[in-house]
Amino acid sequence: MDLQALVDAASTRDWDTDPEGTVSLAVVGLGNYARNVSIPAIEGGDYATVGAVVSGDPEKAERVATEHDAAALTYEGYAEGEAVDAYDAAYVATPNRLHLDGIRTAADQGKHVICEKPLEATPERAAAAVDACDDAGVTLMTAYRMQADPVIRALGSFVSAGRIGQPTKAMGEFTFPVLAGSKGPDQWRLDAELAGGGALVDVGVYPLNTARYLLGSDPVAVDATARASEPFGDRPDDPESPRLADEHVHFLAEFPEGTTGEFTASFSGDADSWLELVGESGRIRIENAFVPNGERTVRVSTDAGDVTLSGIGADETVEEFDYFAHCVLTGTPPEPDGRDGLTDVAVMDAVYEAAATGRRTDASRR
Amino acid sequence: MDLQALVDAASTRDWDTDPEGTVSLAVVGLGNYARNVSIPAIEGGDYATVGAVVSGDPEKAERVATEHDAAALTYEGYAEGEAVDAYDAAYVATPNRLHLDGIRTAADQGKHVICEKPLEATPERAAAAVDACDDAGVTLMTAYRMQADPVIRALGSFVSAGRIGQPTKAMGEFTFPVLAGSKGPDQWRLDAELAGGGALVDVGVYPLNTARYLLGSDPVAVDATARASEPFGDRPDDPESPRLADEHVHFLAEFPEGTTGEFTASFSGDADSWLELVGESGRIRIENAFVPNGERTVRVSTDAGDVTLSGIGADETVEEFDYFAHCVLTGTPPEPDGRDGLTDVAVMDAVYEAAATGRRTDASRR
Repeated sequence: MDLQALVDAASTRDWDTDPEGTVSLAVVGLGNYARNVSIPAIEGGDYATVGAVVSGDPEKAERVATEHDAAALTYEGYAEGEAVDAYDAAYVATPNRLHLDGIRTAADQGKHVICEKPLEATPERAAAAVDACDDAGVTLMTAYRMQADPVIRALGSFVSAGRIGQPTKAMGEFTFPVLAGSKGPDQWRLDAELAGGGALVDVGVYPLNTARYLLGSDPVAVDATARASEPFGDRPDDPESPRLADEHVHFLAEFPEGTTGEFTASFSGDADSWLELVGESGRIRIENAFVPNGERTVRVSTDAGDVTLSGIGADETVEEFDYFAHCVLTGTPPEPDGRDGLTDVAVMDAVYEAAATGRRTDASRR
Repeated sequence: MDLQALVDAASTRDWDTDPEGTVSLAVVGLGNYARNVSIPAIEGGDYATVGAVVSGDPEKAERVATEHDAAALTYEGYAEGEAVDAYDAAYVATPNRLHLDGIRTAADQGKHVICEKPLEATPERAAAAVDACDDAGVTLMTAYRMQADPVIRALGSFVSAGRIGQPTKAMGEFTFPVLAGSKGPDQWRLDAELAGGGALVDVGVYPLNTARYLLGSDPVAVDATARASEPFGDRPDDPESPRLADEHVHFLAEFPEGTTGEFTASFSGDADSWLELVGESGRIRIENAFVPNGERTVRVSTDAGDVTLSGIGADETVEEFDYFAHCVLTGTPPEPDGRDGLTDVAVMDAVYEAAATGRRTDASRR
């Protein structure tokens, strides 16, 4: 793959076999991201549709269902299979610690699953989600939209073809000032218990997973430091009040081939996101990397020349749902499968342990 | 300091009082950097001149001395004060583990000292260098050229004035492919014993020191990982053959105010250097940061607007020697003094310990 091939690949689906049919999804959880990013992306693509919506708020479920000509379900109705014929698969977008419940329900119904990242709040629960889908013989995809972006996929092929030489380091940041956002401190992402962590699991997973994808390799050990905020929210003195885990996290990750990664994520501070991969003979820098539908700029420098990619690619969230539906329609296992999601949950668990103990921590599957 | 004041300050010396006179330097060590970067910078400025040159190679000393109308000395001649009236101060540019000898000789002669970074190979030897100059009542400056660059100095004022808010993180890289250079594996920088380390002490000290300067703060703890190369050179099986320490180093640094730094340095891989400082309400990115006389670009984004600085500033090596000479002429203590150099040597010692033990390591002065 030369530079021209990279540019060409960056705006091409490398997986689309133009199958017949569509996959109808039950959208499980109607938070801001599901309503404003995911549902429009599902409806904007070729192979997926919204067949049902599930919310704890029956009025919200009705309103969204009406807008999209879908069935409205409560969580109880979903668990009881109330509109089971209205969907072929579930898109699980609940708070992280509730993913397993949503996945188990779908697997028990013989439905395929695409689940938001991180796959679950702990490695044990993520492993249980993988097992549930394996046992039921249904597809489980972790919703890593970066892996569906043709630009990122093209870069993965470019790196594995050796165009930047042996990778020496990966570096990345995702700072997303949730704490300064309009939703304030009341959202579940800031509740360590429901989220299974803080900035690491919500935004740090992006540079981690994307680096793993581009390197084709998983960390074996991590060193880390994290800063936890004081209790926050309306009732800071109430021990029952939600606690924020890491507001800022920094970690070093050692990959088996000798590549080292360093990554940081924050819930406060100047917003930006980027990923950089350095090789013996080249470098890739992705600017504005992880914001949904962000205008990415990719700078590639190699022995054979430099190229800058900008204003190309596709809406990676549309790609993500179409890719999942395509996998279901064709019986193809998705690349970001449940085990991919489990690996990140396990690595992030090791990051928290390293931050807490101040010791380099084994990050192999636990 | 607003954005306009930042732009104005970035091309202005904030220390020059236009004193009378010049300071004559003995250049101790005539390696590539001293001959091709430092001597032209000394001669290109206003307040310093070359009065003597010292080399283990008498022929080289004679040749360089003739070119610059200076006294030629061997190390023995320098130690014996052979041309002691030809210089007011010593610029020590020997291999790191020989700095203390060069500094002690100067201090014993009552001469001021500017010493290349890192100040020495170990904290103990760096502390001895500081003590020697304190006892003799002479000035000791660590030759951190970044701290003499008006752009960097202006950024320091900008940060301390709170223009990016409370700093949350500092990030930086210096990859300088010494291993691929024309000097090959035979130079002392690759000899762990003579250099006191590898990529960390030679190039990693730049992002570390510059971050410390911009933050006005020193790390209290570090986590680190480093990769050591196999024995190299002409006689890899010879136990007497020089050994390379870290070819790649990555470390996390915790600062007392809650800022966290992550830094990496390499002796191989695609060459680049940059530093980024993130605050609660702004961000500074310095591109092409640490190459001598590199064309830097500085991107500053704040609540009050953004500015990009490029094509401005000064030759920071000229600034460095003029700043040192100005300190000597005016009796002013230099900002990058011996203790500043000692702090970095101590932090880097902690980084090596953290890398070796896999444990978070106290980085306070040891």
